[in-house]
Amino acid sequence: MQEYIRVAVDAMGGDHAPDEIVKGAVDAVLSRKEIRVLLIGQKELLEEKLKPYTFPGEQLEIVQASQVIETAEPPVAAIRSKKDSSIVVGMKLVKNGEADAFVSAGSSGAVLVGGQVLVGRIKGVERPPLAPLIPTKTGVSLLIDCGANVDARPSHLVQFARMGSIYMEHVVGIKNPRVAIVNIGAEEEKGNALVKETFPLLKECRDLNFIGSIEARDIPHGYADVIVCEAFVGNVILKLYEGVGAVLIDKIKGGMMSSLRSKLGALLVKPALKQTVKSFDASEYGGAPLLGLKGLVVKTHGSSKAKEVKNSIIQCVTFQEQHINDKIKENILREDG
Amino acid sequence: MQEYIRVAVDAMGGDHAPDEIVKGAVDAVLSRKEIRVLLIGQKELLEEKLKPYTFPGEQLEIVQASQVIETAEPPVAAIRSKKDSSIVVGMKLVKNGEADAFVSAGSSGAVLVGGQVLVGRIKGVERPPLAPLIPTKTGVSLLIDCGANVDARPSHLVQFARMGSIYMEHVVGIKNPRVAIVNIGAEEEKGNALVKETFPLLKECRDLNFIGSIEARDIPHGYADVIVCEAFVGNVILKLYEGVGAVLIDKIKGGMMSSLRSKLGALLVKPALKQTVKSFDASEYGGAPLLGLKGLVVKTHGSSKAKEVKNSIIQCVTFQEQHINDKIKENILREDG
Repeated sequence: MQEYIRVAVDAMGGDHAPDEIVKGAVDAVLSRKEIRVLLIGQKELLEEKLKPYTFPGEQLEIVQASQVIETAEPPVAAIRSKKDSSIVVGMKLVKNGEADAFVSAGSSGAVLVGGQVLVGRIKGVERPPLAPLIPTKTGVSLLIDCGANVDARPSHLVQFARMGSIYMEHVVGIKNPRVAIVNIGAEEEKGNALVKETFPLLKECRDLNFIGSIEARDIPHGYADVIVCEAFVGNVILKLYEGVGAVLIDKIKGGMMSSLRSKLGALLVKPALKQTVKSFDASEYGGAPLLGLKGLVVKTHGSSKAKEVKNSIIQCVTFQEQHINDKIKENILREDG
Repeated sequence: MQEYIRVAVDAMGGDHAPDEIVKGAVDAVLSRKEIRVLLIGQKELLEEKLKPYTFPGEQLEIVQASQVIETAEPPVAAIRSKKDSSIVVGMKLVKNGEADAFVSAGSSGAVLVGGQVLVGRIKGVERPPLAPLIPTKTGVSLLIDCGANVDARPSHLVQFARMGSIYMEHVVGIKNPRVAIVNIGAEEEKGNALVKETFPLLKECRDLNFIGSIEARDIPHGYADVIVCEAFVGNVILKLYEGVGAVLIDKIKGGMMSSLRSKLGALLVKPALKQTVKSFDASEYGGAPLLGLKGLVVKTHGSSKAKEVKNSIIQCVTFQEQHINDKIKENILREDG
């Protein structure tokens, strides 16, 4: 009998729901026969959306959820009051062991709160960080934490470093990943109170390849594999990446339209430029896992299309196959003892 | 008799000192006859460097300083021990009223510490912020604070907003500048403890055109003129701007070399691309003023060349002509009473 990896997918969350989510789910099951998707949302609507597709029925099932949590809703209240929302239903499937993972492009706040409150933390994990992959000159780096826990304490950052290191090594496949803490200078005595307290703790971690501070300027160059910071700073980094990239590309395109000569050139460089821009787009690298929970929760970008949804679902397979949560449990317990 | 605006210039600080600093100083006095530069550094060396240039002697004078503070030196100790360094000598000229402003491309730390300790704060100013202009899609924004005061308090951020608003209005010439606080979401209830405390205080300021929170993604789009944040976050924003820009341009250039077709196109778009990249380079916009001091201190980028040095010196003229410090004094005193 086939052992499926069961991924619950929020069909109602994100800018392109449900169409692109449904397409991504179908693409995922067609590409990997060990995946079973539980597509969560309004049953009739989803049945309608699935009609054009052909796929093995045992790999994709609809799970009814009548409500939707909107992005603007205060997360805590929404999780409490909308018991039949796609996010709450999906999280509960993970909690009850009926799904191994949950993927959502919906409200970040609701996913973060729901992960903590409904799925629950692994024993010993103080705060579950959100950890997206960001593109660099040489590949990708893991930015951890990026939105889950503002005003974190040094012990949280140390756990982020550990969990991030395990993820990069076993899911992304980087041997002995270089871990650095975001700082405003390269020297050990630089930084704010949080960084100054955290730095010596990271230095003591024998299980980490801690390489010291990283200045924001060096992050895009790929000088570290795991970029540790508290959530406010991480959120600024992730969003500024996106903003600077978008505006710069826009300005370059505009600049190319400034003369006949450059217009002609633009036609010729267009395919190469498109490829480059794509390789520097954070949304190309699947969703951001919320680490340290009893099951895997993956938040994909609100603007996710089918491809990112598919990638996020496949990411859950690697996570499961590599027994990441067992590795986190073992690591956190060892350090506690 | 001509009333000069007297700008002390650190001839020994920065990657291209003294050559580019000397050239920038000469260019500045040649372009504006109301400027008098006090070029600070090792006299014999500077006399030698000035030989190739012709300029009105009464507009440029060398002031001897035998020592240089290196970037790697701990700032507080360096300021204390190197009494005859170009930074200490320059700051003292401002303190003693022998210069109106001081420009340095040298050690950021030493400039920040020296500004506070040697020049001193305007009465009522709690912390002097460093405030560079950053390029946006539509022009420039002032990023305040960007490195001077980590772990700032809400009252500091309110003063940053006030001083930044005065600077943008009277030096950069933006009427009724839009002031925003960097946050991780647009809603008022979002943020870390510092932002949540500061937000209502900014809302109460009748002298400010406070437009609320700004997410990092929207900063490069130019949605606000004055971007308020504490120094750690500001430093991350400034340096990531630089890093993402550099890597993206590099990737685009690399991408264009990937085929014969795009190589040909690259030749045609090269001038337009160069222009665009330049317009998005923070160092094009002169130095960063350290606001709230009894005289003006301007920190220019360590990699500054003659053009940026010249721009920074000219910036001091506008600052002086617009009586920015009188306006800051008046504003801070009014709010205190």
